[in-house]
Amino acid sequence: MIYYPDALIDQWIMDDVNQGDLTTRILGIGNTRGEIVFSLKQTGRVSGVDAAEQVLRRLGLDITGRVEDGSDQGGGAILISASGKAAALHQSWKLCQNIMEWSCGVADYTAQMVKSVKKINAAVQVGTTRKNIPGTKLLALSAVLNGGGIIHRGGTAETILLFKNHRNFLDFGGAKEEWKKVVADLRSAAPEKKVVVEVESYEEALLALDAEPDILQLDKFSPEELRKTAAAAANRGSRCLISAAGGINKDNAAGYAAAGAQFIVSSAPYYAKPADVKVLIQK
Amino acid sequence: MIYYPDALIDQWIMDDVNQGDLTTRILGIGNTRGEIVFSLKQTGRVSGVDAAEQVLRRLGLDITGRVEDGSDQGGGAILISASGKAAALHQSWKLCQNIMEWSCGVADYTAQMVKSVKKINAAVQVGTTRKNIPGTKLLALSAVLNGGGIIHRGGTAETILLFKNHRNFLDFGGAKEEWKKVVADLRSAAPEKKVVVEVESYEEALLALDAEPDILQLDKFSPEELRKTAAAAANRGSRCLISAAGGINKDNAAGYAAAGAQFIVSSAPYYAKPADVKVLIQK
Amino acid sequence: MIYYPDALIDQWIMDDVNQGDLTTRILGIGNTRGEIVFSLKQTGRVSGVDAAEQVLRRLGLDITGRVEDGSDQGGGAILISASGKAAALHQSWKLCQNIMEWSCGVADYTAQMVKSVKKINAAVQVGTTRKNIPGTKLLALSAVLNGGGIIHRGGTAETILLFKNHRNFLDFGGAKEEWKKVVADLRSAAPEKKVVVEVESYEEALLALDAEPDILQLDKFSPEELRKTAAAAANRGSRCLISAAGGINKDNAAGYAAAGAQFIVSSAPYYAKPADVKVLIQK
Amino acid sequence: MIYYPDALIDQWIMDDVNQGDLTTRILGIGNTRGEIVFSLKQTGRVSGVDAAEQVLRRLGLDITGRVEDGSDQGGGAILISASGKAAALHQSWKLCQNIMEWSCGVADYTAQMVKSVKKINAAVQVGTTRKNIPGTKLLALSAVLNGGGIIHRGGTAETILLFKNHRNFLDFGGAKEEWKKVVADLRSAAPEKKVVVEVESYEEALLALDAEPDILQLDKFSPEELRKTAAAAANRGSRCLISAAGGINKDNAAGYAAAGAQFIVSSAPYYAKPADVKVLIQK
Amino acid sequence: MIYYPDALIDQWIMDDVNQGDLTTRILGIGNTRGEIVFSLKQTGRVSGVDAAEQVLRRLGLDITGRVEDGSDQGGGAILISASGKAAALHQSWKLCQNIMEWSCGVADYTAQMVKSVKKINAAVQVGTTRKNIPGTKLLALSAVLNGGGIIHRGGTAETILLFKNHRNFLDFGGAKEEWKKVVADLRSAAPEKKVVVEVESYEEALLALDAEPDILQLDKFSPEELRKTAAAAANRGSRCLISAAGGINKDNAAGYAAAGAQFIVSSAPYYAKPADVKVLIQK
Amino acid sequence: MIYYPDALIDQWIMDDVNQGDLTTRILGIGNTRGEIVFSLKQTGRVSGVDAAEQVLRRLGLDITGRVEDGSDQGGGAILISASGKAAALHQSWKLCQNIMEWSCGVADYTAQMVKSVKKINAAVQVGTTRKNIPGTKLLALSAVLNGGGIIHRGGTAETILLFKNHRNFLDFGGAKEEWKKVVADLRSAAPEKKVVVEVESYEEALLALDAEPDILQLDKFSPEELRKTAAAAANRGSRCLISAAGGINKDNAAGYAAAGAQFIVSSAPYYAKPADVKVLIQK
Repeated sequence: MIYYPDALIDQWIMDDVNQGDLTTRILGIGNTRGEIVFSLKQTGRVSGVDAAEQVLRRLGLDITGRVEDGSDQGGGAILISASGKAAALHQSWKLCQNIMEWSCGVADYTAQMVKSVKKINAAVQVGTTRKNIPGTKLLALSAVLNGGGIIHRGGTAETILLFKNHRNFLDFGGAKEEWKKVVADLRSAAPEKKVVVEVESYEEALLALDAEPDILQLDKFSPEELRKTAAAAANRGSRCLISAAGGINKDNAAGYAAAGAQFIVSSAPYYAKPADVKVLIQK
Repeated sequence: MIYYPDALIDQWIMDDVNQGDLTTRILGIGNTRGEIVFSLKQTGRVSGVDAAEQVLRRLGLDITGRVEDGSDQGGGAILISASGKAAALHQSWKLCQNIMEWSCGVADYTAQMVKSVKKINAAVQVGTTRKNIPGTKLLALSAVLNGGGIIHRGGTAETILLFKNHRNFLDFGGAKEEWKKVVADLRSAAPEKKVVVEVESYEEALLALDAEPDILQLDKFSPEELRKTAAAAANRGSRCLISAAGGINKDNAAGYAAAGAQFIVSSAPYYAKPADVKVLIQK
Repeated sequence: MIYYPDALIDQWIMDDVNQGDLTTRILGIGNTRGEIVFSLKQTGRVSGVDAAEQVLRRLGLDITGRVEDGSDQGGGAILISASGKAAALHQSWKLCQNIMEWSCGVADYTAQMVKSVKKINAAVQVGTTRKNIPGTKLLALSAVLNGGGIIHRGGTAETILLFKNHRNFLDFGGAKEEWKKVVADLRSAAPEKKVVVEVESYEEALLALDAEPDILQLDKFSPEELRKTAAAAANRGSRCLISAAGGINKDNAAGYAAAGAQFIVSSAPYYAKPADVKVLIQK
Repeated sequence: MIYYPDALIDQWIMDDVNQGDLTTRILGIGNTRGEIVFSLKQTGRVSGVDAAEQVLRRLGLDITGRVEDGSDQGGGAILISASGKAAALHQSWKLCQNIMEWSCGVADYTAQMVKSVKKINAAVQVGTTRKNIPGTKLLALSAVLNGGGIIHRGGTAETILLFKNHRNFLDFGGAKEEWKKVVADLRSAAPEKKVVVEVESYEEALLALDAEPDILQLDKFSPEELRKTAAAAANRGSRCLISAAGGINKDNAAGYAAAGAQFIVSSAPYYAKPADVKVLIQK
Repeated sequence: MIYYPDALIDQWIMDDVNQGDLTTRILGIGNTRGEIVFSLKQTGRVSGVDAAEQVLRRLGLDITGRVEDGSDQGGGAILISASGKAAALHQSWKLCQNIMEWSCGVADYTAQMVKSVKKINAAVQVGTTRKNIPGTKLLALSAVLNGGGIIHRGGTAETILLFKNHRNFLDFGGAKEEWKKVVADLRSAAPEKKVVVEVESYEEALLALDAEPDILQLDKFSPEELRKTAAAAANRGSRCLISAAGGINKDNAAGYAAAGAQFIVSSAPYYAKPADVKVLIQK
Repeated sequence: MIYYPDALIDQWIMDDVNQGDLTTRILGIGNTRGEIVFSLKQTGRVSGVDAAEQVLRRLGLDITGRVEDGSDQGGGAILISASGKAAALHQSWKLCQNIMEWSCGVADYTAQMVKSVKKINAAVQVGTTRKNIPGTKLLALSAVLNGGGIIHRGGTAETILLFKNHRNFLDFGGAKEEWKKVVADLRSAAPEKKVVVEVESYEEALLALDAEPDILQLDKFSPEELRKTAAAAANRGSRCLISAAGGINKDNAAGYAAAGAQFIVSSAPYYAKPADVKVLIQK
């Protein structure tokens, strides 16, 4: 679903195998034909296979089998296999392994987090932030999507998200009227966007709620604080969606859902433990 | 110490702030001047400040202060600060935060790992593998170096490293004479390189040792297996360096050093927990 | 406000002045110092000056004056001027002229269109589509913004926009219940986005309205059809925003606003007549 | 005939479909197979089909039919069609439509202009300038060529073209002897090039003519002024080619040809009204 | 005079100093400040200093002195010097040395060749071909220009050059009438270009001459054959310029000029022996 | 064995055939199908065929035959041939010819140099330096490898090489103890690398030898000086490898091997005379 430009694939290859695999070369085995098999060690959600396939193909290898990104695979499952010259097989090895180990790690973490949240409330989505590790954007988004998450914001131009760091540039005392004005201004300036505002305390949340933004994003609230905020919103009959962000991970996400969060924002999947992918190359 | 090509900096920027920060724009605050301050929440080893500075400068901001990459900083320390237009400040925010949070995480993990190892044996170095997350190569190497680690291999062309996946392409039964032949072949083919061979069991290690490679890399050995291997090497009066790889992290690295490892190879730093960097932007 | 990667600036330069200006070179005047002055022939809204400045600087020239992007300038106004070596001045000439002529053309068209619409209803925004000329994305967005327009969608990932070409992949008969289902599905799948659906006839509009999307985009409706649709929406007390798209330009946009359009979507600015920018280079 | 680097194709794709088509994704229809058909609404000269094919192929689609660039097609003609997964079909849609709408517009304008000129004098060629919209170079040249035009200058290094802005750096009073000297200097410095000089008035033209450049380019002359100049050249038995530039478009080009222009230089095709291309995507 | 895109400079740097200078790093001297001085060992024409300066600046070094490209310098002359951190100085060393050694070699060879030709006939220019070493285009053109040569053709789109390999696609028997037709066709198709035709024998030359191309390029003629051809042209009162190409170098070029060549085409400078540039780096 | 990123292939193509082959275009032969045949004029070692194939394929041509890189071919041998449209054939011509002429030249020079050295001592390898012509890195390395050489250093990060320019930043008097310290420091800092030190005189060599680096690289020693140094090393029973660098080429390399050099470092192959490749294109 995610398109990887060739320049990105080439950058990955050059980062790792610039000038070829010396050991293969000096053994003189480069032209011998063989096969490479990547298999998953533990059960989990899969991602990175599309990207790995693109790498393998660019290195001139033939794909001999593969599973789908986004599927769940058992331990021992072959993720992808390819055949061709040993020179290319050895060039593909660690790069494809890295792609899939990292991607599967992120996807599986996301899948677990989504599952834990949906067990509480099937209507709650988990969206991941812009806080991906620099240089991993497309691979990261792909892994999150394959894990069943969605993209909170793909970039700064995609949505309105009013942070305190923005309000610092307004003469903004935080009074109810000021909240109303800023929300109204944002709404009229970008009628095709939802107005999302982030608040950092319960008190701030109450003031913002009266301005009726489309989404109220609660930053680093405890589940208990969130529950209070959600209750206040319900009391007012607010249509505003309550979103939880800041420090949420797969272990505490369900607690936020249980407390009434209608949307979960997280960066935790990007730092998931990588999956283990075993690689066998042979004639 | 690491040179970042401008295309990489631009790629990072475009990945995140392509088309600008919508919220800043519709608030009409883009031309207001202000300052951005990045501060470290917990004590730790610092990395990514050079890269962040390069981002800040390209966005047209003026640096107003910074610490050195590779230094240890206390909680609350200002890593870097810059001033300029709000439009640019908001474009720099998350990208620079991501760069430094991830980089400091990797650097600090490396520093802890190096420290734990050197407490046992100051002569042992920690080198990180090619298994960095795809797309993070230069940032990752920089963080490892700032953490006091070294680069095990920057790529496949840099050193000889004979894996089982290579031997699978030889008619290699694993007999002592075969080990001798392959080591001699590698040495004569690349006289300026050390010959590193990886083995996967104690028995294989013994056979390989007689071939006198420069370095014997023990993959996924327990400390106990490593101790036995090191003892066997000592018995033979071998000059071969004993290196430990596979599943080594900051918690178990000291155990390998204590068991006699003379070099530690690890991918664990690349997956370190990110540091927490607080960002304040204001007029 | 828009960040131009250096690779884009370099691509523009290489497209035009690859290998230098032959005439300057063979006249032997390359090292003579001089000045270049770009002036606007007719009154209008200005854009492209930031981009031109970036080109001039990369060619090693010193900026001696400039106006702001987004300002209105009278005929004869100097947009930007720079000094330096004749070789660089002649390399900058047509590229900067092209940038500003095209950009000012788009910005001024947008400004006129916005003005005509706002005269009818100050709450109506004009947003431009993804249908910019391939290769002009950032320059085009910048010009639209400088003209007072907004970005309808910066790309396919930015917003939900349900086209008939999407519905063709569903078993979608167009019944009221089907509209309700698809709108509900979209809303629950992307809770941070507004749900925008495009319809191609009045009948389709009525069916879609009952599903309560956030925005109903009417494609190629006449103002009269739009008026009927808006009335029907009002009758239902719908909160749905009525947006007009397809064939709307600066001459007919006001008519749509008068008919009740709450948002105008247009590609017309991208094809505006370029402004006339006069260029004088001399010692 | 024009080679498009993959990086250009990828840039176009990333500019529009970076991170995929959200609507397709959340509808869950991405893997459904379907077909896309691009058809021309009005009769005209065709261009951009080669480029569109390259985009469609990179997105993994199979071409099921197409017409040739440079051909004339009737209203309703299918320009190109392709089949594959809905995710890729929706990613290709607007980009390919934009490419062909713009390219066909430029090509058809050029074709009309060439036709009107050749009706007067079949020996007269229409060449387009370097004043293409920044970022559209290869697509623009291709469209002009497919329209039957030629390239006046592909860049500043391609030909000698002596502008007044060049002469401003010489101590050039404009006397006959000075014209002779500068033309002779240019000719001897670049013996493989024609010497083209641009003049801005009839008087200047007469002085330049005596210097016998290969081509005299008359900037913003009226047809009547051009006729006088051509007559003067004929009187002198000059071999110099008379070329007309500045403000020439498809409506007034024939008048210049009738007045004796032997070559027409124009930027007008780059700003042609785009063609209308209808797109249908379905299972 | 030649513009080098930053991506080219970065490519050079990354090709050589990707991941830094290991020796500098492990010596711990990277932050020590020092100076680098590049000096020419033997007298010669200089080129590559502009490019080296751009490299030095990108590495963060300050230029402390330099000579002009295109100047003649004596043995021992300092071409360029810079100061800054040892890490950057050592990264710049070999790359800048390579740039200047190769560029000076090409420029000096060109200068010698031009001098030898102009001693015979000051009106004869030396133009270099498209046969530069792949990847060296801009550096090569710059060196040739700094050596006093000109560019024969910057690319295939720049000029008309009718090779036998083109005629093989026509039904071309080589008769006089056929030559006339092809020359007339080329001239009318590209009225702003000179028509250059290449011939491979004296007989072919005579037939081509009657067609009156602008330039007759004699491929691999001996000086004697060229003399005969030039005489035949003179006899006919031909205005056609006689150009010599194929195997011409600085040792035999004067002989061609003496035989009547009015233009010399050569690829020899691209393969000149590099100059010797000494590099001293110290605190 | 060497992977060429597509961006490099495209850069080569755009450098030469940007905007197509004008002559082919105006002859109207672009769509005529034909064949291109590249044949080697003189016997020699072959390189560049892989790269040429990649160029031919990207231009849409079908390969009809080719030889292997690294093979020896006789005069007249067809290196590679391809068929397709004349437009593409003419675009491929000079670029592929340049690639193979230069590459074969470098490979054959290397092969001759290796042969002359191995005739003296089969154990001696020839390694080429980082001093390749800027922009030719991958093509140069490929040619050297195809010629039977090896890579001395692929970049500054690959190996330790202690130059005098490094020692200038230490307080280094050159005493025996200082040599011991610096060698020990380097060895402990990079245990996976050999320690290579370069010396510039016999006296310096003796001092360095006592420090027992892994490799002693003698810069610009005469064979006689090298012989003395090798003898001194033998006397000490040193395990240090004696390497010769600086001014070594195919004519004098054997003399160094005879004098006892165990490794030869050279930049000479990069400046080899290009091979002659004949190109025939026809219907």
